[in-house]
Amino acid sequence: MERKLYELQGQQNKRLSPFCWRARMALAHKELEVEYVPVQFGQKDKISFSGQKLVPVLEDNGQVICDSWTIADYLEGAYPDRPSLFGGEAGRAGAQFVNAWVDSTVHPKMIRLVLSDIHDRAIEAVDQPYFRASREKRFGMTLEEFCDTSDENIAAFRAMLEPARQALAESPYLAGSKPLYADHILFGTCKFLDLCSPLVLIAEDDPICDWYGRMLRLFDGMAASDGAVHGQAA
Amino acid sequence: MERKLYELQGQQNKRLSPFCWRARMALAHKELEVEYVPVQFGQKDKISFSGQKLVPVLEDNGQVICDSWTIADYLEGAYPDRPSLFGGEAGRAGAQFVNAWVDSTVHPKMIRLVLSDIHDRAIEAVDQPYFRASREKRFGMTLEEFCDTSDENIAAFRAMLEPARQALAESPYLAGSKPLYADHILFGTCKFLDLCSPLVLIAEDDPICDWYGRMLRLFDGMAASDGAVHGQAA
Repeated sequence: MERKLYELQGQQNKRLSPFCWRARMALAHKELEVEYVPVQFGQKDKISFSGQKLVPVLEDNGQVICDSWTIADYLEGAYPDRPSLFGGEAGRAGAQFVNAWVDSTVHPKMIRLVLSDIHDRAIEAVDQPYFRASREKRFGMTLEEFCDTSDENIAAFRAMLEPARQALAESPYLAGSKPLYADHILFGTCKFLDLCSPLVLIAEDDPICDWYGRMLRLFDGMAASDGAVHGQAA
Repeated sequence: MERKLYELQGQQNKRLSPFCWRARMALAHKELEVEYVPVQFGQKDKISFSGQKLVPVLEDNGQVICDSWTIADYLEGAYPDRPSLFGGEAGRAGAQFVNAWVDSTVHPKMIRLVLSDIHDRAIEAVDQPYFRASREKRFGMTLEEFCDTSDENIAAFRAMLEPARQALAESPYLAGSKPLYADHILFGTCKFLDLCSPLVLIAEDDPICDWYGRMLRLFDGMAASDGAVHGQAA
């Protein structure tokens, strides 16, 4: 087998990227064996062969595919006889909309809740100076000034998830009766939060929390066995 | 033919409900002939037979179906040989997510931009006192106090539409290569804005504006022939 997924990794085997989780779930969904290659912040040389600096990177029998959406699209096309990630063209478009919603709406709000915790609790100590310097330059303030973990901001984050909540009130998964890539997209974000933050960002009585538990149990519980804060009890 | 769609109607034949537009587009998509029955705010007795007070209401050969999503679901099931509204189960789930996003995220921001204009420019004069009283009671302030049409709020509205913008950068329609019900949902909102507001809420160089023009031309331009402000030129 010549298939490798390069993933961002922090302390205690924590996979620290929502986007890498999307790719990991997509590979498991396609029932494809894969070797995971951990990449810490300071180890970008491990993926220099890809010609760019972002994980996830998938190597598949000599092909190199970057970007989580491109990886999902590649897998769907390359392995049409395996379980579908999209459920047809309209399902692919629905997943693309969920992808755009998570990236443009959920992530910008999420990052203000967890950026300090990523630094303090999730990444390796050796990566902390680079992480702090690069993020403080990007946002023009300290990590601590940037973050807002007030009850009001947590409530706003939860309210912003309302489209997923309403969809999950109608169906067990975002993609309908069975989980598809649309689910893996939002799962990646929830799993990332679970790994990084001690806050209860998704309330226990939220349908999203039930769904998250169901997602953790997919693929023989593949996504449950790591250093997550809340997920271990799910 | 015994098929009637009861729609909210204002001045100059303007159909004043995003939800009624969803149902109207769904019927055209299914290539079903229908008689439109206009209902003004003060004419709710016209739909008392439905046992509730909201439009759209569809009467189809003796059956009565309320709520735009339920109408779309009904049409998809009742007319399986006509063009599909969803493109399969995953496509239906994608449309459901778009539906939840528009209802929970787009509409609450939209209403602060247009509530005064709906009163001043769109509904019949005879309906204005009821409209003002009911909305001012709901929001606890005058229509004019409630509305915010500042440049900043218009920019925030446009930014909030980013998931649709990103999806339309990848595909000509939200549902992929062809328009499906997911498109009709957001179209209903854009058409409603076009009918009610003189503001340019979607910039001309926005991919959403191009998509809106394509949607107006569907079904022999069915949705273009009315009192819209911007759509007539599209």
